Amino acid sequence: MKRTFLGLILVLVTCGLWAEDGHSLWLRKKETGTVNVVCSDKSPTLAIAVQELKQGWQGIDGASITLKIKKDKAIRNDGFKLSSTEIQANTRIGILYGVYELLRRQQTEEAIEEKVYNPSYQIRALNHWDNLDGTIERGYAGYSLFWGKDKNLSVPTDAEKQLWKEYARTNASIGINGAVLNNVNASADMLTGGILQRVKAIADILRPYGIKVYISIKFSSPVAVGGLKNSDPLNPEVAKWWKEKVIEIYKTIPDFGGFLVKANSEGQPGPQDYGRTHVDGANMLADVLKPFGGIVMWRAFVYASNDKDRAKQAYNEFMPFDGKFRDNVIIQVKNGPIDFQPREPFSPLFGAMKKTSVMPEVQITQEYLGHSIHLVYLSTMWEELLNSDTYQQGKGSTVARCTDGSIYPQKYTAIAGVSNIGLDRNWCGLDFAQSNWYAFGRLAWDNQLTSEQIADEWLKLTFGNVASPQSADWKQNFLVPVKQLMLESREAAVNYMMPLGFHHIFSADEHYGPGPWWAPKGIRADWTPPYYHQASANGVGFDRARTGSDAVEQYHEPLASKFNDPKTCPENLLLWFHHLPWDYQMKSGRTLWDEICYQYATGLEQVGEFQKTWDKVEKYVDVDRFIRVQGKLRHQRRDAQIWNDACLLYFQKFSKRPIPYQLDRPQNDLDQLIENDRRRLHPGK
Amino acid sequence: MKRTFLGLILVLVTCGLWAEDGHSLWLRKKETGTVNVVCSDKSPTLAIAVQELKQGWQGIDGASITLKIKKDKAIRNDGFKLSSTEIQANTRIGILYGVYELLRRQQTEEAIEEKVYNPSYQIRALNHWDNLDGTIERGYAGYSLFWGKDKNLSVPTDAEKQLWKEYARTNASIGINGAVLNNVNASADMLTGGILQRVKAIADILRPYGIKVYISIKFSSPVAVGGLKNSDPLNPEVAKWWKEKVIEIYKTIPDFGGFLVKANSEGQPGPQDYGRTHVDGANMLADVLKPFGGIVMWRAFVYASNDKDRAKQAYNEFMPFDGKFRDNVIIQVKNGPIDFQPREPFSPLFGAMKKTSVMPEVQITQEYLGHSIHLVYLSTMWEELLNSDTYQQGKGSTVARCTDGSIYPQKYTAIAGVSNIGLDRNWCGLDFAQSNWYAFGRLAWDNQLTSEQIADEWLKLTFGNVASPQSADWKQNFLVPVKQLMLESREAAVNYMMPLGFHHIFSADEHYGPGPWWAPKGIRADWTPPYYHQASANGVGFDRARTGSDAVEQYHEPLASKFNDPKTCPENLLLWFHHLPWDYQMKSGRTLWDEICYQYATGLEQVGEFQKTWDKVEKYVDVDRFIRVQGKLRHQRRDAQIWNDACLLYFQKFSKRPIPYQLDRPQNDLDQLIENDRRRLHPGK
Repeated sequence: MKRTFLGLILVLVTCGLWAEDGHSLWLRKKETGTVNVVCSDKSPTLAIAVQELKQGWQGIDGASITLKIKKDKAIRNDGFKLSSTEIQANTRIGILYGVYELLRRQQTEEAIEEKVYNPSYQIRALNHWDNLDGTIERGYAGYSLFWGKDKNLSVPTDAEKQLWKEYARTNASIGINGAVLNNVNASADMLTGGILQRVKAIADILRPYGIKVYISIKFSSPVAVGGLKNSDPLNPEVAKWWKEKVIEIYKTIPDFGGFLVKANSEGQPGPQDYGRTHVDGANMLADVLKPFGGIVMWRAFVYASNDKDRAKQAYNEFMPFDGKFRDNVIIQVKNGPIDFQPREPFSPLFGAMKKTSVMPEVQITQEYLGHSIHLVYLSTMWEELLNSDTYQQGKGSTVARCTDGSIYPQKYTAIAGVSNIGLDRNWCGLDFAQSNWYAFGRLAWDNQLTSEQIADEWLKLTFGNVASPQSADWKQNFLVPVKQLMLESREAAVNYMMPLGFHHIFSADEHYGPGPWWAPKGIRADWTPPYYHQASANGVGFDRARTGSDAVEQYHEPLASKFNDPKTCPENLLLWFHHLPWDYQMKSGRTLWDEICYQYATGLEQVGEFQKTWDKVEKYVDVDRFIRVQGKLRHQRRDAQIWNDACLLYFQKFSKRPIPYQLDRPQNDLDQLIENDRRRLHPGK
Repeated sequence: MKRTFLGLILVLVTCGLWAEDGHSLWLRKKETGTVNVVCSDKSPTLAIAVQELKQGWQGIDGASITLKIKKDKAIRNDGFKLSSTEIQANTRIGILYGVYELLRRQQTEEAIEEKVYNPSYQIRALNHWDNLDGTIERGYAGYSLFWGKDKNLSVPTDAEKQLWKEYARTNASIGINGAVLNNVNASADMLTGGILQRVKAIADILRPYGIKVYISIKFSSPVAVGGLKNSDPLNPEVAKWWKEKVIEIYKTIPDFGGFLVKANSEGQPGPQDYGRTHVDGANMLADVLKPFGGIVMWRAFVYASNDKDRAKQAYNEFMPFDGKFRDNVIIQVKNGPIDFQPREPFSPLFGAMKKTSVMPEVQITQEYLGHSIHLVYLSTMWEELLNSDTYQQGKGSTVARCTDGSIYPQKYTAIAGVSNIGLDRNWCGLDFAQSNWYAFGRLAWDNQLTSEQIADEWLKLTFGNVASPQSADWKQNFLVPVKQLMLESREAAVNYMMPLGFHHIFSADEHYGPGPWWAPKGIRADWTPPYYHQASANGVGFDRARTGSDAVEQYHEPLASKFNDPKTCPENLLLWFHHLPWDYQMKSGRTLWDEICYQYATGLEQVGEFQKTWDKVEKYVDVDRFIRVQGKLRHQRRDAQIWNDACLLYFQKFSKRPIPYQLDRPQNDLDQLIENDRRRLHPGK
């Protein structure tokens, strides 16, 4: 009977009738050999480690592996030493990480030589922008795993607990050890009893996998749920309220991680509401968390509507406070000075805050990069960030080294990624979006990994063991071209969305399609694309040179001078830093206008090539994932056309120049695109 | 003051602010010299001739031209003899035609040498599919010029009369001399008093321009408006009713042209309703019209739902009656055996009916060729028809020669074009659609003209004298590329819609977008695309060879054998005549499936090139027409993408073969296209 059932499964799989829903991510079931695991520790974490080894073993059948918790100076934090026979670590979770590394290497057929693996950052956290009603801000993969409007939040169901366990295991497999469970635009209700009970339930499931929970707090909670008259951080009543709240939390969740705070930003309350500073606010919270080992992640994403250049504001506001924050405060800085655009220069705060702990925040969810529709592998963007040289302590002061403790002593080092997961069966809404979750974890663990290596791993783990073995044929005809596609994909998105330093020319609100024209009366200028592109008959681009907003001055030399001169400024940031005439001569020999046209055309062509690449690998992919990805690529190609047409036709109104006749012509009319967008924004009108 | 006003106009024109609405068609205002016209005739027609000469003269300033009505054996019907000093004709309208020819030659800078110009067909008629409520069946340029729901039809307004005059002048300028004023799916109300009064009013305005009016009649009119018990053509009461009606008509309109009849076709009543034949019906009407010189144009567009091959039915139904019709009956035969498809073989009735007058019916309105959106110059299609050799009287028995009296003696020769005009300011909904009205008139006058020459004339007349003179620069950089675009345009449409002999794979009802899948339950099979494409795992195409429906047998040898063998059948009709396996070897060396893919891709590419061509001529065209055409070409390109994607993805379900990887991939999903189409057909469901 069992045999017949297995036979049936085999038939189903062979015929492609077994739905490949993508739920198992990079942790796919596979044929295993047997392994003897030597392990004296009986903790839940080690039990998981043993189980993972047994159910994932791809090494020599009947081999032995020893799991050993033993201090070693070469091993830092939750690092481990791995050999083909032994995993050694300082901590239990270090052992589990070693197990996942071992299994990954077996599956990807990478050598297993004795080596120590240490994490780049102590805290490697997902930020979930999940609201208590179950919606997810900038989420494109369904509702929240944690919250929901019609749920009894105090009593998780077995299905929820199972899903949280899968979530925990998946994160642990790539080294993620922190989860901020709710949106940075936080509800004060997070600090109420029922919700905290649910946080506890989640924490209990995540704990064996080494994951601490954090919550985003609303700074005005003392008023909103505490009944106080204000939330002034220097008001002793307020500090007392927070202290008691923190005690309550730690009673419930002894290993609670701490708070994430978005204060005085985009309408959120903060210490400035009472004439206090970010330091006042952050330190007050840090003080109450400190006795329990908790931390405050305080976001530097701030900008007022009255300044001339939004890109300068976080720096201007935070630099004066350098050295004034407690050692358990970490300033969380978005990768770029504006907001997760397809391409930005690195935020000038990196490396500049020399006496303050700083952590990078990147966005895994594709708010500005095609949501869960466009295939955009973000690792290359993060690699670009991490390897950016700030020059703050001489050449080689990369963002990675300025944040991971290599250059500045930080009590805590950390990195955060805004999660892209939800209740969609495949977690991320798009099969390839899973690679961004994977890549974030891998880079958080080791910020020197290359995107190429991460893509290689992910493809082998995710697509390698399904329809075909990792044969030479598979490597040559699937792995190589699809990896190339992934590595090119972010640059393609930059090309068809906003090349040459263009930024934030999205249509309003949803940050998906183009809207360079969008500027309704009465709205803050810095929420409208014309503020960012500054197109006129004279030219295009935001002048951040010394002649303009002087944002270049926030960068350390030689960058300030390099960015300041259009001739030395990297062309992929040209319009970020400069307003230039349409006939400005580019390195290609083309005018700026022609170059813009060519860049968009290149993006279009790249997506077309991605389609071809994918269609060619059909036989190496199960039918479900093949069709899903094929459909998304078609959608992406249509969107790229709309980007191309909208931006070229809009900017052409200012440039008054023809699109070079070698290029394909727009297929959409600008008026119709604007009207379609207006209808999206104002349905029924 | 006058000077200032003219100066203003000059400024407006120069700045492109003078709206180029396309209303003046190919009869544009221009600078003229003076001319002395010698003419003794004072008729309205000659008065028009003189006026046209004076307001359009482009010859030597102060030259003289004599208009002379004098019989000449070399001049037939309304032909004329033209020299640089004289126009001679048998008839007044012949003089007017001569004037238009002279002015055209002046404007297009063609030589004016002494030569006789005779019309190929005596009757050159537009068929207006205009309904009495003002709608136009298959009309894409607004409401009817003649009818309307809320109008007092008995009392035309001055504006209406002015428009009818412009209509008459435009037709006369290209030799059109007949207008069927209402839809072939006729209302019986056409024969009622008020309507006939309006027909008279129209006829009065058209008369000086040499245009006779005709009406489509409903065969059941004796019952519907006559109060008779039946409309049996052999019922003497019925014949009497028609006789009296015809007398009434001729009392009102002495030069009335006659009736156009769609009988026993697509639900229209006819003689078969009483067990009578087409001969019985047509001859009865012919007999009552004969005393007044009226004719009956009887349509051969018939097909029942019970036959296996719709393409064979008109031939099967009409051939037995050859020789049985009165000499004032003309059988009106659509160009192809099915229905105005982008490409069909010629109808086998041409040349086969040797003892019956036969007239071709072509469709100027683009029912199956992109409505008033796609730029498709139809002259090449009609040229293909007219030059098709039927072999019925040996080699060289072209459709043109079989219908214009060259081969068969016909008392009347005629050609009809289903009009594409309406109340839209530019008459045709699309500037380039005007060229099809022009081309129909020119080919009806001279069925040996080439499409190249007609396009050349039309472009010079329509675009040549506006923003730029007919300089060498204009000819090289506007005329040559745009003419090439026009000449390629119909083949491009075939390529992206239904290449290789595909036909009638349109979505239901509107005959605009693709719908190869459309086949709701319970509908007549021959109204659904799968009936026509016959796609299955085995192959695709309609088998009309001897092994199949044997439609090839309706063609004269050597055509029957040529069409019968896939190896000799023209590839552009291959799937019309044959059902072939997907891997059938084409002359290109490709499989049939690959060739289909390449043909669609070629069509896409052609439209893309049309866009480039048009964009490149921007400086030679006024801004209004430039933008309008540019917008339509963008729409056409989007539509071509939808055709490509819909057809390839649909047929791929049967072929199970990949689209060749050299080709760009589809951008739309089949399911979504089908769903979009379903919503169009069933809005709100």
